[in-house]
Amino acid sequence: MKSDLDRLMAERDLNAVIVAIDHAYSAAFDYLVGSVGVTGGIAVKKRGEAPVLVVGGMEMEEAAASGLHVYNSADLGYYDELKESGGNPTKATIAVWGRVLNTLAIAPGKIGIYGVGEYNWALAAVDLLRAAYPVYEFVGEAGASTLFDQAAVTKSADEIARLKSVAARTNAALEATWNFIAGHHAGADETILKPDGAPLTIGDVKRFVRRELLDRELEEDGMIFAQGRDAGWPHSRGQSEMALRLGQSIVFDLFPRELGGGYYHDVTRTWCLGYAPDEVRQIYDTVMTAFDIALEAFAVGKPTHLMQEAVLDYFESQGHPTGRSQPGTTEGYVHSLGHGIGLKIHESPRITHLLKNDTFEVGNVVTIEPGLYYPDRNLGVRIEDALYVDESGQLVALTDFRKDLVLPIRGVKGG
Amino acid sequence: MKSDLDRLMAERDLNAVIVAIDHAYSAAFDYLVGSVGVTGGIAVKKRGEAPVLVVGGMEMEEAAASGLHVYNSADLGYYDELKESGGNPTKATIAVWGRVLNTLAIAPGKIGIYGVGEYNWALAAVDLLRAAYPVYEFVGEAGASTLFDQAAVTKSADEIARLKSVAARTNAALEATWNFIAGHHAGADETILKPDGAPLTIGDVKRFVRRELLDRELEEDGMIFAQGRDAGWPHSRGQSEMALRLGQSIVFDLFPRELGGGYYHDVTRTWCLGYAPDEVRQIYDTVMTAFDIALEAFAVGKPTHLMQEAVLDYFESQGHPTGRSQPGTTEGYVHSLGHGIGLKIHESPRITHLLKNDTFEVGNVVTIEPGLYYPDRNLGVRIEDALYVDESGQLVALTDFRKDLVLPIRGVKGG
Repeated sequence: MKSDLDRLMAERDLNAVIVAIDHAYSAAFDYLVGSVGVTGGIAVKKRGEAPVLVVGGMEMEEAAASGLHVYNSADLGYYDELKESGGNPTKATIAVWGRVLNTLAIAPGKIGIYGVGEYNWALAAVDLLRAAYPVYEFVGEAGASTLFDQAAVTKSADEIARLKSVAARTNAALEATWNFIAGHHAGADETILKPDGAPLTIGDVKRFVRRELLDRELEEDGMIFAQGRDAGWPHSRGQSEMALRLGQSIVFDLFPRELGGGYYHDVTRTWCLGYAPDEVRQIYDTVMTAFDIALEAFAVGKPTHLMQEAVLDYFESQGHPTGRSQPGTTEGYVHSLGHGIGLKIHESPRITHLLKNDTFEVGNVVTIEPGLYYPDRNLGVRIEDALYVDESGQLVALTDFRKDLVLPIRGVKGG
Repeated sequence: MKSDLDRLMAERDLNAVIVAIDHAYSAAFDYLVGSVGVTGGIAVKKRGEAPVLVVGGMEMEEAAASGLHVYNSADLGYYDELKESGGNPTKATIAVWGRVLNTLAIAPGKIGIYGVGEYNWALAAVDLLRAAYPVYEFVGEAGASTLFDQAAVTKSADEIARLKSVAARTNAALEATWNFIAGHHAGADETILKPDGAPLTIGDVKRFVRRELLDRELEEDGMIFAQGRDAGWPHSRGQSEMALRLGQSIVFDLFPRELGGGYYHDVTRTWCLGYAPDEVRQIYDTVMTAFDIALEAFAVGKPTHLMQEAVLDYFESQGHPTGRSQPGTTEGYVHSLGHGIGLKIHESPRITHLLKNDTFEVGNVVTIEPGLYYPDRNLGVRIEDALYVDESGQLVALTDFRKDLVLPIRGVKGG
């Protein structure tokens, strides 16, 4: 939680952190500052103190909405330094950073650099920073357990409330999508017909979903609606012009977030329109069993990798290749079991056999998403819910949507 | 243009560039690879050769859609190194980068690092890279004239065609928004009434605009619809719950892009609903004159800063403070005159007195956007078109939408 930041900074011996943004959404900036419409600048947090903001004059008003103390970069010498340097905006920016470190009386030592933007800028700017302020050690941090990852691994009640709201709106968009598709009739060649007689395509469905999200103040950050062979590739988005067909496995992975950047939901369903072939049904049942095995493997305080290993044991016992039995395989169970969600779509804790540091804790919000993939058999199945660990240590689903394989289509027997 | 990349790499003495992405849109990656649904990985371009891609197994299929040669990171030893390093994904990633440099036989020397993602990751990863492969010098690049900025400063015919399409769709969304607002009646207290009798708010308008964009396969990357005092702050987004009011200046800055990331358009209009007070009209006419002065100052081969200086001269002659007469001012003309647009909202050339390196060239696509801001007088005015320099050296508007100040409202005299 945010209240852990000072402790986590102390563990890293960081006297301050600078979180910079430049026309890209940064979860760390949002975490420190809140959702304000600032497109560039920095948040600086001295250990033990509230963050402050430094922005250009044009963004003072938006920055003020954060409730934090805001500095105008002009008042910290931006334009003086720009002139001095003969028009070098990077030098001017770095000079402003130096002034704010001085203004906040940051003690010599380590300063963490976070935020999102162009890597090339970061490398060049930090070289300048290091040369200009040798009293500080400016450091980055990689891996799955950075400062902000570790803070965000447990969510506050406010964050859980926002995640519940995003979940409820996502559930409603799923329901609307199901009803939209189910409102169509089957046509020739196992297609689904639109009222004008043209086949319903993946592009049509995605357009529908985007509008449903927007009406609920959500936005997609990509979306997977992949059919047949494409469903066999976990990250294939699906081809817009492809017509939906009866009896194909369709992987629908929806991971929207609050409009403009914010908390995510993440859910996957696998659908067969009209009817399910035996081969798909069999794989589906295996994945559903894996899902239940995962839930049963949950306990607060338990290493997360053990949940993945329970699922790996099961899939392997059923004869499926996995990322453990055949690292890098593109058939069978090829990915991790789940991940935290929050202001990023992939957060800690990670539920994988490849990283063994995480344990389940109260306040975690995670996905559980076993799947099986056989692109050469034109089939893929994934089932995913997002869940949170409540105060009593129970794993509670945020996703609330039926896990039916067959989505009935008018004019199809049983549909 | 893309065909300039090898020359620009040679000028920088770069033997290769690595463009990395990680769950964030990178214009450089899109420029090299095209719009593919890859969420992580790298594009590597050896000087003089076509780029190649390195992605995880789950994204092989999406990556293949680029038509480029694609390597699976598993085949380049990702999982071996992950095991070797005791589960350190950053080390495993860096090892893959080393393998691909080796596979492509990149000669010892400079390698440019580009892309978008977390700064903290970049700093830590590049430290590892430098330690692991001392034969290379891994470099970043800051400022307004990086490798990709310089390449993108002139657009190809294909790029112009896409920019024209985005412009046409944005023009249509503007027209729809104008008609939407104009379809309302005035109510009490200078408000505008919805059919249900409630006042029309900025949030209502933004929701309308987002749907209009989505229906045209565009997405907003922020949007400014700021009224009264907020209009006086150039980057204030506007407050959703605020009711629209007659006779206030409203700055509407719309800069959508192709859905999922891609080419931008950028246009601003200033509207007064129903009627315009004399004070706003006067400022508006001054900004329109500045706009015309800017167009007259255009010539291929001319330094861009001279266009800004012509506008500065005019505004100052009319008694307005500017960023030249009072650097850092938040009243008067407080920003630059324009900027390139493309896969980024702010590209080269820059049209400002603060950077003097750019000259207008055939293939430039720029905004021209003079404005005047007086937040304490509850007013701001900005007029912006996007334009391109055609083969004959003429500046041609991409934006095609009326520059009327007064948007008529039913029930208002003259409205």
